[in-house]
Amino acid sequence: MTKIVIVGGVAGGASAAARARRLSEEAEIIILERGNFVSFANCGLPYHIGGEIQERSKLLLQTPDSFLARFNVDVRVMNEVTHIDKTAKTVTVKRLTDGSEYTENYDFLLLSPGAAPVVPPIPGLDNPLTHTLRNIPDMDKIIQTIQMNKPEHATVVGGGFIGLEMAEAFHRLGIPTTLLEMADQVMTPTDREMAGFAHAEIRHKGIDLRLKTALSAAEFIPNMTVASEDAGQSDQHQHLEGKLNLTLSSGDLLTTDILIMAIGVRPETRLVTEAGLETGPLGGIQVNPSMQTSDPSIYAVGDAIEDADFVTGQPTLVPLAGPANRQGRMAADNMLGRNETYQGTQGTAICKIFDLAIASTGKNEKQLRRDGTVYEKVFVHTASHAGYYPGAEIVSFKLLFDPQSGQIFGAQAAGKDGIDKRIDVIAVAQRAGMTVAQLQHLELTYAPPYGSAKDVINQAAFVATNIMKGDATPIHFDEIDHLSDNQLLLDVRNPGELENVGYIEGAVNIPVDELRQRMHELPKDKEIIIYCQVGLRGNVAYRQLVNHGYKARNLIGGYRTYCFAKA
Amino acid sequence: MTKIVIVGGVAGGASAAARARRLSEEAEIIILERGNFVSFANCGLPYHIGGEIQERSKLLLQTPDSFLARFNVDVRVMNEVTHIDKTAKTVTVKRLTDGSEYTENYDFLLLSPGAAPVVPPIPGLDNPLTHTLRNIPDMDKIIQTIQMNKPEHATVVGGGFIGLEMAEAFHRLGIPTTLLEMADQVMTPTDREMAGFAHAEIRHKGIDLRLKTALSAAEFIPNMTVASEDAGQSDQHQHLEGKLNLTLSSGDLLTTDILIMAIGVRPETRLVTEAGLETGPLGGIQVNPSMQTSDPSIYAVGDAIEDADFVTGQPTLVPLAGPANRQGRMAADNMLGRNETYQGTQGTAICKIFDLAIASTGKNEKQLRRDGTVYEKVFVHTASHAGYYPGAEIVSFKLLFDPQSGQIFGAQAAGKDGIDKRIDVIAVAQRAGMTVAQLQHLELTYAPPYGSAKDVINQAAFVATNIMKGDATPIHFDEIDHLSDNQLLLDVRNPGELENVGYIEGAVNIPVDELRQRMHELPKDKEIIIYCQVGLRGNVAYRQLVNHGYKARNLIGGYRTYCFAKA
Repeated sequence: MTKIVIVGGVAGGASAAARARRLSEEAEIIILERGNFVSFANCGLPYHIGGEIQERSKLLLQTPDSFLARFNVDVRVMNEVTHIDKTAKTVTVKRLTDGSEYTENYDFLLLSPGAAPVVPPIPGLDNPLTHTLRNIPDMDKIIQTIQMNKPEHATVVGGGFIGLEMAEAFHRLGIPTTLLEMADQVMTPTDREMAGFAHAEIRHKGIDLRLKTALSAAEFIPNMTVASEDAGQSDQHQHLEGKLNLTLSSGDLLTTDILIMAIGVRPETRLVTEAGLETGPLGGIQVNPSMQTSDPSIYAVGDAIEDADFVTGQPTLVPLAGPANRQGRMAADNMLGRNETYQGTQGTAICKIFDLAIASTGKNEKQLRRDGTVYEKVFVHTASHAGYYPGAEIVSFKLLFDPQSGQIFGAQAAGKDGIDKRIDVIAVAQRAGMTVAQLQHLELTYAPPYGSAKDVINQAAFVATNIMKGDATPIHFDEIDHLSDNQLLLDVRNPGELENVGYIEGAVNIPVDELRQRMHELPKDKEIIIYCQVGLRGNVAYRQLVNHGYKARNLIGGYRTYCFAKA
Repeated sequence: MTKIVIVGGVAGGASAAARARRLSEEAEIIILERGNFVSFANCGLPYHIGGEIQERSKLLLQTPDSFLARFNVDVRVMNEVTHIDKTAKTVTVKRLTDGSEYTENYDFLLLSPGAAPVVPPIPGLDNPLTHTLRNIPDMDKIIQTIQMNKPEHATVVGGGFIGLEMAEAFHRLGIPTTLLEMADQVMTPTDREMAGFAHAEIRHKGIDLRLKTALSAAEFIPNMTVASEDAGQSDQHQHLEGKLNLTLSSGDLLTTDILIMAIGVRPETRLVTEAGLETGPLGGIQVNPSMQTSDPSIYAVGDAIEDADFVTGQPTLVPLAGPANRQGRMAADNMLGRNETYQGTQGTAICKIFDLAIASTGKNEKQLRRDGTVYEKVFVHTASHAGYYPGAEIVSFKLLFDPQSGQIFGAQAAGKDGIDKRIDVIAVAQRAGMTVAQLQHLELTYAPPYGSAKDVINQAAFVATNIMKGDATPIHFDEIDHLSDNQLLLDVRNPGELENVGYIEGAVNIPVDELRQRMHELPKDKEIIIYCQVGLRGNVAYRQLVNHGYKARNLIGGYRTYCFAKA
């Protein structure tokens, strides 16, 4: 009889337990969870705080009782593993209810400890108004602070998933919110110019977004009003109340009523380090493709491990639910004699930011540049479905690829509709090893309410393939502000658009539909830098000019990409 | 200078003209279109009739003037090609405005004539209340009939895309509607049990859907009221008014005020047959992967041609906008010296049916059975996004695959959210040659508003792979009504569900969470046929039983598939 002990009962651990039981009725399966909850919906926490998910109970997907009834798994909450003895194949477990300890032996140990919020050593953070958000008790404390203190201002530090979701939650509750981000962009899986769409949306909703701004110090100013026990106020109530004076890296001061620290997470590896299991260069638990650690009886999955990056094969930390769940299932397979191998992580991710979705898969440009990879990129901005059918929204899409082989490196998208779909298409194509040339042939669902006869993805592939074949010579948004005297900027939109939407200083305006007649106005000894709103008419103009012997380049993604890169 | 003459100015023809011009400024490009419109949104016609697309002008994507200005293409509407002389490389063109004729020579001829609605030889159809819907004038006539006659009842014959969209259009206008379909299902690209979701939705909205019912005869009963010219009524008005008495194959009679014939389309091949170009076994124009007909100077694209089926390589007729557009672009490439090859058609399609979307890609089960292909299938019914986040809808998904190799044959989906996305994922995976085992590893966008940590697709892949590995023994919905005495039907849902949702007659009920305790109640000498609501708990029960030495099978897709197969 195989005995499997699982440390951590959320995504990866819970998946492993359920799968292990389906494979074997005889196995003894124990989940040791130091928290009070197993298998809760950690991705849903911010939405319950904001009130979108109204019932707290919806976040509790399984209980120890339900796990026992369905899967005959012995779930022990408030049981913390404090030590692993890999030679004896035992773990030391501390009952958090009474502090007593016991030893549990195992045939296989599965570590699914997750990752903990990083709280930097900023002075003054240890106060009752400062929170992180990882689990149900964290969520409960934040809700309690909101309900008791009725904050009039909230501050969120960090523009990642949790930071963005928490800023939106406060906004939904009617609490004016400041979002601080040390980098020059939120949502770092995307590149700066794509994050611009998020910045515009966040500011449009009234969030006080401050980029390149860190928190330097916090000071807790308790509210001096003495709690009135007659009025039913408790001591605890009194202690919670107060304000925070924040000092920012900009030198600005900010007074706030609640502070969320959401700058990122770090793998929980204390146990494994102590046990002498190997960790990787990024500080996560090292595993092989079977999810096995350096001790063959010990497996590890989820946010605590280093995955292999799908594109580069290099170690990467990807604290996301999808990989964790699939890894858990796979670890169970392998502990019970199967031979499943993990196929690498693309890091496919999406975040809802008010009405906007922003998503990515594969490598971004920052990473490619850092790795010294030769790449090309295209941007398209195309309707989420047929423009003539109501409700179409612009999908702003970026595709990164190898200009020689056409290999897909990654993609990013932002918009109000159909973002998940487009990134999913690329996530599949990339995993399947398709090239951008093959993306031209994709045959995606089309009816006016759902897509276009030439979908966003087909169009991006056409542009990419044009570049690869030399049918298009691109120029990118970040080069436009640095043109030389040998270049002439040509805006081929209609004059009305320049007036309504804006234009780039110094551009000559000849609408594309007048270009054949007015081409002679353009110099042949200069390189014509063409732009339009999104790049499509620019390409038509480009083809006319080069077919008439001009030197030209077309701004990929057009004025729209240029503008949002600055947002 | 290359001279390209294009016959037909909608999807394929218009795409070809624009692409040809981008490749060459010198080419002479002429579009000959016998209708009054080019490049109109034919997929949008039903939505304008129903009022969802309010402005007719939105359907007119390009005009001859706009084509000339942007692409320097000579667009001649109301010019019908009546004859092709492939030896002389000329076409005879008739000006429909005055009946005069002229000859136009070409270097390359591109045929994009489309497909015409099939109107069967049913007696009495030639009357002013009977319509087909292919183009703008057809749409205008239908709208005119509705506006002038104010029909109190409409009948649509044919449950394909146009028939379904027209039934919805009439419903939106408040006109009680009967939908007749000769087959036992609408939306034939899907299989019968998936079409059940459409049937339920159509009937739920109050459409009088009659399956296995054909139209046998129609009789036009003109309204005898004499038009009052004093009241501004015209002669034409008088002629339009009246009723239709329909005789159905069921023997039933039906009186209706407007009749739409939408049973399908047939390639327009009169020109090519006459010119001696080859047609294929299905009656479409035969082309090679370069889109070339049997005459190397003549190309053909779109609804009129026979495509190569992506899965089987066999000829197929796929009258859809996506392939037409891409083929047009490709034909232009090849006429101008490129070497692009068409990669086959999967027939990816989607239809909005009121609040439901139903979609498919690749082969369906009917086709696989007809071809004698060995296949297996799975059904899953899973939330479109995390169930705990508001707005999740059930995605009902069917995957067809080779049980030996795992090759993806096709997929179908129905539901109110995320249907296009799931079929797109499979369309990409199938085109890339992925197996169902590889689908397990897909890393799709996940955040609670958009998906699940284990997406519908991952789950379907898990079920399929379980079957392939022998970890699951499936039984399908169509076998449940024919169980033998050696089989015992076991419902593992909770008693409340049986009461609320219904159950299959003769089933024993043991909830999955009680199964371990009550397993002894089940006979070991019979095969236990397990079912639950969607198949997931059934699998848990199945694994328990077989791991305890029982013979068992699990109903794939559960009670939900079983029920909707009868809808």
